[in-house]
Amino acid sequence: MGIHQFVPLAKVTIDDAFWNPRVAANRTASLPAIYQYFKKTGRIDAFALSWRPGQQPEPHYFWDSDVAKWIEAASFCLQQQPDAELRQLVDQVVDKVCGAQQPDGYLNVYFTVVKPENRWANLRDYHELYTAGHLIEGAVAHFQATGSRKFLDAMNRFVDLIDATFGPEPHKKAGYCGHEEIELALVKLYHVTGNQRHLRLAQYFVDQRGRQPCYFDSERPGYNLPGSEKGDYSYVQAHRPLREQTEVVGHAVRAMYIYTAMADLAAETGDAALAAACRTLWDDLTQRKLYVTGGMGSSRHNEGFTRPYDLPNLTAYAETCAAVGLVFWAQRMLRLSCDGRYGDMLERALYNGVISGVSLDGRRFFYENPLASVGTHRRQDGFWCSCCPPNIARLLASLGQYVYSVAPGELAVHLYVAGAAEAEVPGGPAVALTTQTRYPWEGRVRMMVQPSRAAAWTLRLRIPGWCRRSQVLVNGAPVESRVERGYAVLARTWEAGDVVELVLEMPVERVRAHPAVVQDQGRVALQRGPLVYCVEDADHRGSVHQLVLPEDAELTARFDPELFGGMVVVEGQAQAYAAAEWGDGLYRAASVARTGAALRAIPYFAWENRQAGGMAVWLASG
Amino acid sequence: MGIHQFVPLAKVTIDDAFWNPRVAANRTASLPAIYQYFKKTGRIDAFALSWRPGQQPEPHYFWDSDVAKWIEAASFCLQQQPDAELRQLVDQVVDKVCGAQQPDGYLNVYFTVVKPENRWANLRDYHELYTAGHLIEGAVAHFQATGSRKFLDAMNRFVDLIDATFGPEPHKKAGYCGHEEIELALVKLYHVTGNQRHLRLAQYFVDQRGRQPCYFDSERPGYNLPGSEKGDYSYVQAHRPLREQTEVVGHAVRAMYIYTAMADLAAETGDAALAAACRTLWDDLTQRKLYVTGGMGSSRHNEGFTRPYDLPNLTAYAETCAAVGLVFWAQRMLRLSCDGRYGDMLERALYNGVISGVSLDGRRFFYENPLASVGTHRRQDGFWCSCCPPNIARLLASLGQYVYSVAPGELAVHLYVAGAAEAEVPGGPAVALTTQTRYPWEGRVRMMVQPSRAAAWTLRLRIPGWCRRSQVLVNGAPVESRVERGYAVLARTWEAGDVVELVLEMPVERVRAHPAVVQDQGRVALQRGPLVYCVEDADHRGSVHQLVLPEDAELTARFDPELFGGMVVVEGQAQAYAAAEWGDGLYRAASVARTGAALRAIPYFAWENRQAGGMAVWLASG
Repeated sequence: MGIHQFVPLAKVTIDDAFWNPRVAANRTASLPAIYQYFKKTGRIDAFALSWRPGQQPEPHYFWDSDVAKWIEAASFCLQQQPDAELRQLVDQVVDKVCGAQQPDGYLNVYFTVVKPENRWANLRDYHELYTAGHLIEGAVAHFQATGSRKFLDAMNRFVDLIDATFGPEPHKKAGYCGHEEIELALVKLYHVTGNQRHLRLAQYFVDQRGRQPCYFDSERPGYNLPGSEKGDYSYVQAHRPLREQTEVVGHAVRAMYIYTAMADLAAETGDAALAAACRTLWDDLTQRKLYVTGGMGSSRHNEGFTRPYDLPNLTAYAETCAAVGLVFWAQRMLRLSCDGRYGDMLERALYNGVISGVSLDGRRFFYENPLASVGTHRRQDGFWCSCCPPNIARLLASLGQYVYSVAPGELAVHLYVAGAAEAEVPGGPAVALTTQTRYPWEGRVRMMVQPSRAAAWTLRLRIPGWCRRSQVLVNGAPVESRVERGYAVLARTWEAGDVVELVLEMPVERVRAHPAVVQDQGRVALQRGPLVYCVEDADHRGSVHQLVLPEDAELTARFDPELFGGMVVVEGQAQAYAAAEWGDGLYRAASVARTGAALRAIPYFAWENRQAGGMAVWLASG
Repeated sequence: MGIHQFVPLAKVTIDDAFWNPRVAANRTASLPAIYQYFKKTGRIDAFALSWRPGQQPEPHYFWDSDVAKWIEAASFCLQQQPDAELRQLVDQVVDKVCGAQQPDGYLNVYFTVVKPENRWANLRDYHELYTAGHLIEGAVAHFQATGSRKFLDAMNRFVDLIDATFGPEPHKKAGYCGHEEIELALVKLYHVTGNQRHLRLAQYFVDQRGRQPCYFDSERPGYNLPGSEKGDYSYVQAHRPLREQTEVVGHAVRAMYIYTAMADLAAETGDAALAAACRTLWDDLTQRKLYVTGGMGSSRHNEGFTRPYDLPNLTAYAETCAAVGLVFWAQRMLRLSCDGRYGDMLERALYNGVISGVSLDGRRFFYENPLASVGTHRRQDGFWCSCCPPNIARLLASLGQYVYSVAPGELAVHLYVAGAAEAEVPGGPAVALTTQTRYPWEGRVRMMVQPSRAAAWTLRLRIPGWCRRSQVLVNGAPVESRVERGYAVLARTWEAGDVVELVLEMPVERVRAHPAVVQDQGRVALQRGPLVYCVEDADHRGSVHQLVLPEDAELTARFDPELFGGMVVVEGQAQAYAAAEWGDGLYRAASVARTGAALRAIPYFAWENRQAGGMAVWLASG
């Protein structure tokens, strides 16, 4: 099998009962809300470079990246749906951004007007190349959406400057960014420009990272890295060369971004060592450090990883951006290897820990996505550190590019999203695919295949890891399909009008965590299909933290048309600790009585869309 | 019943199998180690006032309190056992301290040599009166140990200055300290001087605290109070007048110190409102915010209290000083009311969360006392913020003063510690008591009563709350004694040679937490007598965090002479999650298999005295 190429956004149409409301809220509510927040806080107008010392607000060194991500999200929307008003606004913002570019190609408001003398002086702490990376991603998306080369050309000039500044040559700085991002952005740029220097610069940043002595030792630090001894750069994944890293460590978002770039480069260059490092790191993440929601980075302290199996629920940091980053990384791993282990995690993150980051109306956001709450954790309109809202916005606006991929002689379906796609099977025909499904509420998927000509090629359909029994039908007849690394392999001569049906059994399941996850011992999470469920006080008489789910309690799934426009809820007869009977004491020898209690669980992503109250993913069991 | 007076340290001798090693390690190891640490770090020599700007180390604003607590601890040791060498050293240190006193009576190294212009300028943040309080406590103990008035007189002059500076009169500052301490110190000083002004000054500080508008609003803050919005002074218990406070909040040590002073004042002045506030706060602490070890203040963030029932084990802050403070407060509550609820908590803290703060050899200290560990939490030789080591040292050196109290016509025994005491029963005879016991290893206590003359008075013996069956014998014959608020009441005519025996059944018990303590749901702690037990990796083949204790597993207590010179261990046949069988995944539907595993629990206070490894107080149950 060769490297997979994902079918680009412009070739995919989404028309899906589950995703349409998410995508629409993103376009009509999140995007304007984020713009307004950035406008109000001065991030947009900062590009005018009119700030003078003493003025408030002072532009921050990562503000440019916020605006760049908004441009990217808006451009993805434009690729999906023409919108003259949005187009005009995006172009205005792009004009402002480009207007801040310096004659030598440099672009960063903070290091132009606030601390021009500090340009490239503290790569570890000041996100300078990170910001460049987001500008590049924004420019690529803007070009793809509009055909305008203005932003793209500006970023090409910026990258020329960066390329002239950083590299292995003696006259260049041997540095790289404390917050990874530019590496994956340069690969995206290369895909558009075909300029090998862009790919080589990404490769340089990846190769150089963690080389000893560490470049950061030559800088004057701006602050102590969280939770790190002096000289320990694991917080920024620079404690040793990336190829030698075996454990996911440090700041979770940075980790996801650099692993994404590593997989990107492995796909572009065939670098087996990078690919192997990615697989090792993937196993460490998914076998030891990932929440059941696809969230990660359990500690607020370093916004990142701690020790294996340390997955507290109430205090889970699980930054939205980190789950978004996992979707990026999983997609790149699927390019390297069409393996269900990657598709499963892409799906897990997307349907749970990513979309929990935004309210159903698109107006409020979580920075942190805990797996339990006592009712005090609420979504916010915006954050001073605004990375998460535009990150989820650009992911939802570009959802189509995570669904299908092609490789020589084959087409793979990774997610089940109703809509249509047009793909070119390398060495095969052009294929129009139409997908009908009520996934994830139901497990039945119907795909109409319209190849441009009858030809033999292979259709790969992901059989999700959560699914124990599945069936594939072609033109109404069951077929015995081989399942290869999590994908049903349908190799045949496809003709126009062929219909493939996939039936995935989707019962409610009790999920248990590895016993080393102390916080989840004696507890179960409920999952149905790709959706992890949670219980909220809003659906219960007492605190959900007092619920106990007997092992033998029957659980039923039911579509509730009244809940948020229609969602499948999970219901059953459970018990609750009789806290009232306990009395005043805090400790006693006698065990705790229980009473009967109806249990009603809703999808995790939909929590905190009613009144404030407790929430729990992991239920006491037994 | 009247107010109880505790039999003073000088009148109590301890000769106890359990406590002798603790007290000896404290005197021979902790006290010299703490002195050396203070000497090495410049805290002792700072009193020479020779610091000049730019020199390192710069004296810190709370250094004086560290040295004062060492003087106090050493003076307590001298009260228990003459020691010419120690006496000489203490007097030298006292000379140094007194040498730093300014002509106007002021004494604080930092505000004399580092920031003299800031004297009394930021009471909220800079511990200036707190430091004065510890100096006063040191002076009182030094006077009681040596008869020398030097330090005491110096502190009287300092208090004169403080009294002239603070108070309700218009020409005085209406302030009080952000870190409470001086309030209880002034009551101690009053007990020695009989000077009503000392009591009134304590009363002023207590009355003034939390009055609106808050005094701290008139200061320029040095930093944001942890976890507090601007203008919220709950971190320092000044959010409202103390009499109106109903919930223990904020920094735990500060809370314990001010509640101690409130109870002190209630006992001295009969202030019923203060006593009532103390009782309400006591209930809030012991019914909602106290670890089973007597530790408290679950959060590192504010070194203090969070919401009710929030008692995480692994991340428990549970500062040693806070448990020490609970012993102080409980003793003062016993003065107000000879009620077992106070004696029980005094005992719980003392035998568990206090003495866990120091290693068995007296050389290493815990600042934090978590109830679970993955092996990374180790005792340290010293801390930059050195409050805990001298705090536990002064408590262990003064243990005798927490054992017996007298009130008109009665003598009460609160703790069962072998040794002797001489007490004057108000309105009754002088009584010499000799106690023999192997408590807490065994539940049998034998007391010989030697009154100066045969007379009728009441002996109160605390029947611990953990004890379900007890028996009292007088001169070998069982007596039916009334138990009044947790104390067996023995009212009779006592004659020389009377022997009282108390038999407390002491089985191993499974303790459960209120179900609102989510972290302890489905878990049990083991307790025998006053001792809370824990399991350590050192005694088990795998991780203790994988142990499961079946509800019906028999648990036996056995004295193990090999363990740390002899301790009772708790043993039984338990199970362990079969983590090895689980495989690579992090989540799955199938439940976790278990295998048989021998369980061996040791007293909590003795943990982390062998190799690094996991520890748990709360065991999975079922």
